[in-house]
Amino acid sequence: MAATIHAVHADRLHYAWDNALEPALRVSPGEQVRLHVRDASDGQLGPDSTAADVSRLDFDRVNPVSGPVYVEGARPGDVLAVEILDFARPSWGWTAIIPGFGLLADEFAEPWLRISTVDGDRVRFSDRIGLPLRPFPGTLGLASPEPGPHSILPPSRFGGNVDCKHLTPGAVLYLPVGVEGALFSLGDTHAAQGDGEVCGTAIETAMETTVRLDVRRDLRLDAPQVDLPRGLVADQSTSPYRICTGVGADLLEASRDAVRAGIAWLGEEHGLEREEAYALLSVAADLRIHEVVDAPNWVVGICTPLAIFEP
Amino acid sequence: MAATIHAVHADRLHYAWDNALEPALRVSPGEQVRLHVRDASDGQLGPDSTAADVSRLDFDRVNPVSGPVYVEGARPGDVLAVEILDFARPSWGWTAIIPGFGLLADEFAEPWLRISTVDGDRVRFSDRIGLPLRPFPGTLGLASPEPGPHSILPPSRFGGNVDCKHLTPGAVLYLPVGVEGALFSLGDTHAAQGDGEVCGTAIETAMETTVRLDVRRDLRLDAPQVDLPRGLVADQSTSPYRICTGVGADLLEASRDAVRAGIAWLGEEHGLEREEAYALLSVAADLRIHEVVDAPNWVVGICTPLAIFEP
Repeated sequence: MAATIHAVHADRLHYAWDNALEPALRVSPGEQVRLHVRDASDGQLGPDSTAADVSRLDFDRVNPVSGPVYVEGARPGDVLAVEILDFARPSWGWTAIIPGFGLLADEFAEPWLRISTVDGDRVRFSDRIGLPLRPFPGTLGLASPEPGPHSILPPSRFGGNVDCKHLTPGAVLYLPVGVEGALFSLGDTHAAQGDGEVCGTAIETAMETTVRLDVRRDLRLDAPQVDLPRGLVADQSTSPYRICTGVGADLLEASRDAVRAGIAWLGEEHGLEREEAYALLSVAADLRIHEVVDAPNWVVGICTPLAIFEP
Repeated sequence: MAATIHAVHADRLHYAWDNALEPALRVSPGEQVRLHVRDASDGQLGPDSTAADVSRLDFDRVNPVSGPVYVEGARPGDVLAVEILDFARPSWGWTAIIPGFGLLADEFAEPWLRISTVDGDRVRFSDRIGLPLRPFPGTLGLASPEPGPHSILPPSRFGGNVDCKHLTPGAVLYLPVGVEGALFSLGDTHAAQGDGEVCGTAIETAMETTVRLDVRRDLRLDAPQVDLPRGLVADQSTSPYRICTGVGADLLEASRDAVRAGIAWLGEEHGLEREEAYALLSVAADLRIHEVVDAPNWVVGICTPLAIFEP
């Protein structure tokens, strides 16, 4: 017996978290939902766009999410389990440096745009650089019990824009339920991204996404948690790596220093312009905290897989 | 022709970085050095120690490093390349919660100690928990050009206590040279550790360590960088994982929240006491920054490989 798959169409979207929104769909626990989503620009950027289009972005339309889906029986204090099942294959994606946004916003004042194409299991970032296709939703979360609209951009303990690159098929995300019916929404789909998403954008692309939603009453959570199946992390890490570190007393500034070192290294070793290097670190390299206990200095590393430079 | 391996014996050690120290050894670029080291307690903890011995630690003797090694021709502005070649297999290691030290120091006031044994390629953390043996030096660095003694505990841009768990055999660490001869030292060897080393200690054990030291004039660095060979990261990540996240406006506090969630999860799911859970996250789980751009909230995840619970 084939499972019924419920659909949320891409015109059932919203631009803020708000627990007063009318559900786009009602499902029972354990059912599958296919969400048609728009990309994070809400269609304002296309495969022919240029950096000038980045300057003209209407931010009121940024990061739309599809939903909300009301899950029968979900109550505050429960946990919603979101199993990531499937993505429609994209053909292209965009990566932008948006003025005022990103870990090094003060150092990258000009808009910049890169259109990547998808070729089989590779995302073609440039003639010389290919990334593994690793689709996941950047934003997926639940309505907050706090009334009124809440910005869609920052994540919260109810999930949202968590940008956890590990949410590829097979992963299960657990979210604390804040309101009756949970009110689940999803958007901001990415074809690839590194831990940190340092320039502020990934390989941004609209991808139809299928998930299974279930209610768990045996878990207690204050913030999102994830279960990853065997091999998923290893599958993303078979490459040789270059780690560039930042060392300092402030974790955020150490992260910035690591990214600055990564940009310099990509420039010297691989001839990349500063903007391209910054964006490449965002879509391909992982920020890890190597140590955060040897006061007063912490060590953050940005880990770049060198296989992206292979033909 | 077998390469000559120079030796630094474990009595040639120091407890502070100081560029006035007499070299223990002089080598030419490209030569191999085997360093006999002591563990981070300088022999104050042994396989029969208890938590009471943690309270009695003399901190003036903590984290000794062997060296310094003077590398002929190395000058300020050069880069010292440290290739990690080999470790002698340890038979045991200690992990402590030391009052006043660690990411959750305010929440873990009492000393705690765990002795692990090494069985083949596994570190036996408890009857139920085994970690992959992944030996690396927690502390390796160069003398600072600033005169006088500098604490051995915090890392700096010249390396030191970087606790980068990826420095297993095959990795190459690049360090900026601050003084003539570079003055390289190494200690604090670990049999296993997670990114973050959250409780402040790893699987601490003395391991004879062999490295190759070379001088690079084609690189410019402000902080340590690392090259990892193919497969090294994947080899550490074949397991299924649980990620517990922290979400918040301060990266350090979000890291703490992630660790708190990991401790709660290990208690509820695996029946671990709080102290054991905290220490296990330190030796086995990796802190990653999932996103650091969706202001005002960042997302940090602590990623625990579930294979540690397999027989």
